[in-house]
Amino acid sequence: MNTDQKKAKTNTKHARLTIQDTLDVVGGKWKLVLIFILSDGKKKFNELSREAGITPRILSKELQELEMNDLVIRTVCDTKPVTVEYSLTEYSKSLSDVIIAMCKWGENHRKKIVG
Amino acid sequence: MNTDQKKAKTNTKHARLTIQDTLDVVGGKWKLVLIFILSDGKKKFNELSREAGITPRILSKELQELEMNDLVIRTVCDTKPVTVEYSLTEYSKSLSDVIIAMCKWGENHRKKIVG
Repeated sequence: MNTDQKKAKTNTKHARLTIQDTLDVVGGKWKLVLIFILSDGKKKFNELSREAGITPRILSKELQELEMNDLVIRTVCDTKPVTVEYSLTEYSKSLSDVIIAMCKWGENHRKKIVG
Repeated sequence: MNTDQKKAKTNTKHARLTIQDTLDVVGGKWKLVLIFILSDGKKKFNELSREAGITPRILSKELQELEMNDLVIRTVCDTKPVTVEYSLTEYSKSLSDVIIAMCKWGENHRKKIVG
């Protein structure tokens, strides 16, 4: 392998790892969907669960992971009974290109399948 | 809810479903990584397994799903022993915007974390 080939191989590996990083943070069935729903504005836990069609147990885990990665903010509201609200962080906006690209692809894919 | 609000809600739901469609087809830990690796050119099953670091059992399942969705072509080569090669379809190129957006985001996210 010459220097250029080695460099190309290192670049490819690096790019593959960056995709894996992204998938580690927002991969899975729900995270990008939740971010998309929250882009509409803050939501209460129960609203999110209903809108996304996710069971509370899974939703709770997904939101916790999003919070850990600075993509979602959890706010406990001093109401009776206590309610918990979720909203997007400024940082989450950096995902807009990923979300837009996925929307467009899904749209085209649906057309392809429906024919 | 007035007509505009209803329309906005319908559009939001539609966009959410298109994201879910995309995640149904290329979501999960491996599919986009495999497509990225194959963008380099066709690979034998064992090469793919080694390069991606996926067990043969999972790789086989992932490739089968990619093939079903017209993203990957499986070719049986008349060698001794028989080998199986995988390559990308023309249609898989439609995912390039998704892959590029994910590469960029992963790159920035890594910088953010490393600081």
